[in-house]
Amino acid sequence: MRIKGVHSRTIWTDSDNPHIVKIIDQRYLPHQVIVEHLSTVQEAATAIREMHVRGAPLIGATAAYGMYLAAGNADTDLYAAAQLLKATRPTAVDLFHAVDGSLRALSGMNGADEKVAAARTFAERWCDASAEQCKQIGLHGVALIEDVYEKTGNPVQILTHCNAGWMACIDYGTATAPIYQAQAKGIPLHVWVDETRPRNQGSRITAFELGQEGVPHTVITDNAGGHLMQHGKVDLVITGTDRTTRCGDVANKIGTYLKALAAFDNHVPFFVALPSPTIDWGIDDGLSGIPIEERGAEEVKYVGGILENGQHARVLVCPEDSPVANYGFDVTPARLISGLITERGICPASADGLLSLFPEHRAKK
Amino acid sequence: MRIKGVHSRTIWTDSDNPHIVKIIDQRYLPHQVIVEHLSTVQEAATAIREMHVRGAPLIGATAAYGMYLAAGNADTDLYAAAQLLKATRPTAVDLFHAVDGSLRALSGMNGADEKVAAARTFAERWCDASAEQCKQIGLHGVALIEDVYEKTGNPVQILTHCNAGWMACIDYGTATAPIYQAQAKGIPLHVWVDETRPRNQGSRITAFELGQEGVPHTVITDNAGGHLMQHGKVDLVITGTDRTTRCGDVANKIGTYLKALAAFDNHVPFFVALPSPTIDWGIDDGLSGIPIEERGAEEVKYVGGILENGQHARVLVCPEDSPVANYGFDVTPARLISGLITERGICPASADGLLSLFPEHRAKK
Repeated sequence: MRIKGVHSRTIWTDSDNPHIVKIIDQRYLPHQVIVEHLSTVQEAATAIREMHVRGAPLIGATAAYGMYLAAGNADTDLYAAAQLLKATRPTAVDLFHAVDGSLRALSGMNGADEKVAAARTFAERWCDASAEQCKQIGLHGVALIEDVYEKTGNPVQILTHCNAGWMACIDYGTATAPIYQAQAKGIPLHVWVDETRPRNQGSRITAFELGQEGVPHTVITDNAGGHLMQHGKVDLVITGTDRTTRCGDVANKIGTYLKALAAFDNHVPFFVALPSPTIDWGIDDGLSGIPIEERGAEEVKYVGGILENGQHARVLVCPEDSPVANYGFDVTPARLISGLITERGICPASADGLLSLFPEHRAKK
Repeated sequence: MRIKGVHSRTIWTDSDNPHIVKIIDQRYLPHQVIVEHLSTVQEAATAIREMHVRGAPLIGATAAYGMYLAAGNADTDLYAAAQLLKATRPTAVDLFHAVDGSLRALSGMNGADEKVAAARTFAERWCDASAEQCKQIGLHGVALIEDVYEKTGNPVQILTHCNAGWMACIDYGTATAPIYQAQAKGIPLHVWVDETRPRNQGSRITAFELGQEGVPHTVITDNAGGHLMQHGKVDLVITGTDRTTRCGDVANKIGTYLKALAAFDNHVPFFVALPSPTIDWGIDDGLSGIPIEERGAEEVKYVGGILENGQHARVLVCPEDSPVANYGFDVTPARLISGLITERGICPASADGLLSLFPEHRAKK
């Protein structure tokens, strides 16, 4: 998608020096677009852990490129590199798929050059596949938006939580892919953007993305979505997911479950958009099976942004000595989800639903 | 309750100059305790509108003292003063009760001195009655906490949203009154404090209050409560209310409805604490009957706090040109509420429940 009218992906290699991987350091969005250079697997791990990049597909891609950077350094043990990357964040399953996939791609290779080439090819294919999956999610998901528009004739009101946009992926996004597709088709729509405390990925990143693409949107607090749904101001909720179980439970950014409850209570369709690498075919029950990351207190106690003079700063918002808990994700049970939008189509949030689209996983559990 | 060990109320008259009404300017909490002097009804109206004071009972008390300040100024028309105060905020019904009550108290009075004395007596009695109501809410509500402790033997885990503490009232608080009472009785407990965006009354004021009283607590984002309830980490939810309908629907700080949904989904008791002046006996259905305040975009776009050097500042957290909507309250339907804690006891959230405690309203509708 576009930043200031210029097409970009979220991760790429330097055209002059392919040993440098470039990312957008998303901590400074929307106020500054800073491109960071990664040249070691350690830097890639830090970028994931400290959330310079975030979003399940982009975490996977950065890990794949991290393995490429590790392969390019004779002093780096590839298995240690894999462990380092896997230890960065626990919830998104793409991370583990990407690292293990890269290790498999490397396993048959002998010389250093061969390994570097294999790791690079793996990372590039991972990114291209991810972008293509998101594109397909858009092509399938747009039907949901079209349906509403055909019924009401009014701009379609969509609510989303966190950033499941192209900034969380390589391109197009997951939850945003149907939105961008609808915009391209000229369907009038408007997006309610949950700010998504504590890291404000909604108000910082989703609002930025949508603004850059000219999509009408309004930023709201995380508290507001239920009220909007009670008053008929939301036609459709679409979120992303960091890990989806075989039975259709979804771990996504903390607070997603509350929006799913409100959607259910107000008969608002609640859809989750996901490329298949976010599916963990080995887990049935999300509540007991998916590890939920606990992050540092600082993310809640301090809020970052820019001062009136344009400088970045953070302000303390609670008593300095008050304890804080910071859970990164929650699990939305399949019973609250109207459907899953995947690159192969839309299915019910259930084992049967997912297996109807991905029959190759029928025997695998 | 106490600030730095010293007992205080939230509003009082200067002991040397009774024509000055003092409040704590709550916009600077928890970082600074600033006492503001009000000497005109215009200043009282500004303090309510700009949320130097907030919380239904304290809004009512400040309005009552605003009428007192108006009565003390020969140039102020009392009916214009009443209109000014009533126009400050639309949702809390105490405001209207307090202003109309003061007007009634003044209506029989003739000379200026008599009017001033009547308005002052009305305001003082309003405050004393409010403090006594909150005390009684604590004495009734503590049974709910005791019951949990007797069953589990573990510290009772209570979640609250916004600030329905003594800072929202005159003393004791509404939702916090049972908590302070339990603390005084030596029942071990712990409070999950929703930060309550956009104005962070939870992380700023509730956390401050609880800290000053030595009540164990943890600040969480508004997104986190559902996750905690899914994992059995909440025994009881207690919130306040800005307006309660005859049938037990409750308008409270935006986001309360989402917590009520999560409590219902996880079989966690959800109680609302309210002094009877917050009941609007003229409204049945909260969703259609209670006006919901929309506030300025700035409250969402900017977050205030202190910088590392201790200075107050605000930071912009979203794109400068992104539109923002800011709804102040939402309505929690009675069907999601386990019970109402009033100064006369605990009752079901229903017309029958409320009328069983307040039979004098049976014929009045």
